[in-house]
Amino acid sequence: MGTIYEDSLKAHEEWAGKIEVVCKAPLKDKRDLSLAYSPGVAQPCLEIQKDVENSYKYTRRHNLVAVITDGTAVLGLGDIGPEAGMPVMEGKCCLFKTFGDVDAFPLCIKSKDVDTIVNTIKLLEGSFGGVNLEDIAAPRCFEIEERLKKETNIPIFHDDQHGTAIVTAAGLINALKVVGKKMEDISIVVNGAGAAAIAITKLLFSMGLRKVVLCDTKGVIYEGRDNLNAIKAEMAKITNLEGKRGTLKDVMVGADVFIGVSAAGTVTKEMVKSMAKDPIIFAQANPTPEIMPEEAIEAGAAVVGTGRSDYPNQVNNVLAFPGIFRGTFDVGAREINDEMKIAAAYAIAGLVSDEERSAEYVIPAPFDPRVAKEVAAAVAEAARKTGVARI
Amino acid sequence: MGTIYEDSLKAHEEWAGKIEVVCKAPLKDKRDLSLAYSPGVAQPCLEIQKDVENSYKYTRRHNLVAVITDGTAVLGLGDIGPEAGMPVMEGKCCLFKTFGDVDAFPLCIKSKDVDTIVNTIKLLEGSFGGVNLEDIAAPRCFEIEERLKKETNIPIFHDDQHGTAIVTAAGLINALKVVGKKMEDISIVVNGAGAAAIAITKLLFSMGLRKVVLCDTKGVIYEGRDNLNAIKAEMAKITNLEGKRGTLKDVMVGADVFIGVSAAGTVTKEMVKSMAKDPIIFAQANPTPEIMPEEAIEAGAAVVGTGRSDYPNQVNNVLAFPGIFRGTFDVGAREINDEMKIAAAYAIAGLVSDEERSAEYVIPAPFDPRVAKEVAAAVAEAARKTGVARI
Repeated sequence: MGTIYEDSLKAHEEWAGKIEVVCKAPLKDKRDLSLAYSPGVAQPCLEIQKDVENSYKYTRRHNLVAVITDGTAVLGLGDIGPEAGMPVMEGKCCLFKTFGDVDAFPLCIKSKDVDTIVNTIKLLEGSFGGVNLEDIAAPRCFEIEERLKKETNIPIFHDDQHGTAIVTAAGLINALKVVGKKMEDISIVVNGAGAAAIAITKLLFSMGLRKVVLCDTKGVIYEGRDNLNAIKAEMAKITNLEGKRGTLKDVMVGADVFIGVSAAGTVTKEMVKSMAKDPIIFAQANPTPEIMPEEAIEAGAAVVGTGRSDYPNQVNNVLAFPGIFRGTFDVGAREINDEMKIAAAYAIAGLVSDEERSAEYVIPAPFDPRVAKEVAAAVAEAARKTGVARI
Repeated sequence: MGTIYEDSLKAHEEWAGKIEVVCKAPLKDKRDLSLAYSPGVAQPCLEIQKDVENSYKYTRRHNLVAVITDGTAVLGLGDIGPEAGMPVMEGKCCLFKTFGDVDAFPLCIKSKDVDTIVNTIKLLEGSFGGVNLEDIAAPRCFEIEERLKKETNIPIFHDDQHGTAIVTAAGLINALKVVGKKMEDISIVVNGAGAAAIAITKLLFSMGLRKVVLCDTKGVIYEGRDNLNAIKAEMAKITNLEGKRGTLKDVMVGADVFIGVSAAGTVTKEMVKSMAKDPIIFAQANPTPEIMPEEAIEAGAAVVGTGRSDYPNQVNNVLAFPGIFRGTFDVGAREINDEMKIAAAYAIAGLVSDEERSAEYVIPAPFDPRVAKEVAAAVAEAARKTGVARI
């Protein structure tokens, strides 16, 4: 065995593609052919022509999500181009199928222009039941998602934002129980102001959080600061209500929770020590966290989560997206709204029982076989309650 | 059992989609996840970033064709809309996989504008190894195919044109042997001047045919006639060298071969009787041919082919496209050129041995298990010989 990278390259060469498109209809004789294809196939075609809604009945659309990237923010690798992003997209499709029995197909779009990307997806809308946007750089990703939500009739989900937000929220729900604090009372510092950080902040807001300060590489984000793009300016209005200024280090003092989706080594032991009693740390920079778990614990952290599989409490999106689309498709939901995302977060958190819950176990394991089903059920129920379920 | 249409509708409801996207990589534990997805997947991504050619090695692209329609010329149903065309596209994908082990994925584009369709496909180019255009109305389909051939780096194939042309040519090769005539000597009348008719004419030209007259619903096509669109005007220059005018009936007199891709009942027994000795009829209107085989034979036809599975000599595209893309992908061909199409036609024809060949058997059966392999081998060889093979 070589390194994981060498082994992965070798495995990818052997797989020669990680997905395969297979046929579910028998095609053994003339009659099979006349049912699945000409002339019989004319009938489902005509039924769909009468009512496009029937496309969910007679084609795979009802279970099919497009996994779409422009290749501009792939893993930690950045803008590597549309084709180079495809091994990740195929992997994502594998996870969709394996964990959620959702058919997912990878598409890369050769453009970095918001209008072009939005229009391309709109033109393909009839081929899919939903869209999972993936590894599209901020702030472009926000506008693309916003516009697609308005301009299409199928659910749109940017996993880098909402998947991460949902699993982080799930971890936080349990971590707060471990330390005996409440969402309404705590103050949070979120470092990194990219897609995930913004989505985490917004989701936690809709779950009751009030006190949050966002930081980017230039320090604390406050209204009127220089170097704020549109989304950061928007966030400046609803976060940091005390109008704090300064560095990450400054605002960490007294905070209950640190959530990092930023870069390795941005948090020191001293900064953790300056936080409120029983601080919670979700240090999700990949592959090296903002602070290593052992250091955070030495500095007094009560609960630590990371993006890594070799430490407790891994914030792994695979806990969310397969079940979210499973539930969405199960009830033919027209959108994936906040209530559905919150329901997913509580479903993930709920898989850790009161007895099991501890500082080392606030997030279930990615391979916990209960996860996708529970998430799907909760998401489907929330879709029904909010009136977005079609079936 | 009900009619084939009732049974097909019921079957489509049970299948709930005829395709499925499955995962080829194992995903049973943490290590599997780190190989197929993060962090290992970064390595194939970086290899593709270095050289896009590697996308054929590390993703499914090398075996993946997009089956793309705008829903404007679906079966005989016409312009039924993008979503309504999808049961046919899914069926096509099933045939690709079952007969050629080619992964095929259906996409419908919600536009009838040539520029929009071309640009959409160009933007998605990096996701696929080839494109099969399907059920796009003429004359738009010609321009779309031409432009994509020039403006992309992947093979483009409009099956309604070339698939039909290849199988018709295969049938004609054998039919001419049955009657003892040669391609160079015969005169052909082609009725219908849509996608298939034009492609048949062009392919037969490149196989040695010289004398051909095209007809549309307004009669014989000749240079300078009214009501000629761009492609018909182009065809008028290279066909009908004697400058004939008049109706289909007029030009049938003395012709050796009639090829119809037009409408039911456009050919009478009298017209067949007016043809040269041992006339060959390929009456491919669907579901009802230009003349029914029994009538054509009564009128003296030596060989009759149709599009129907309940008569001998079915011109069925499934004999061509799976093997064509199989061969194309096997050698990583950059295009599907005329030589590859001709090779496919001769390969299909060659499956009918000298001993077997008869008026009732000039085209092999769609379920003949040898077809796709033979076609693939011939196409791959032609690709190599013409220097378009990448591997």
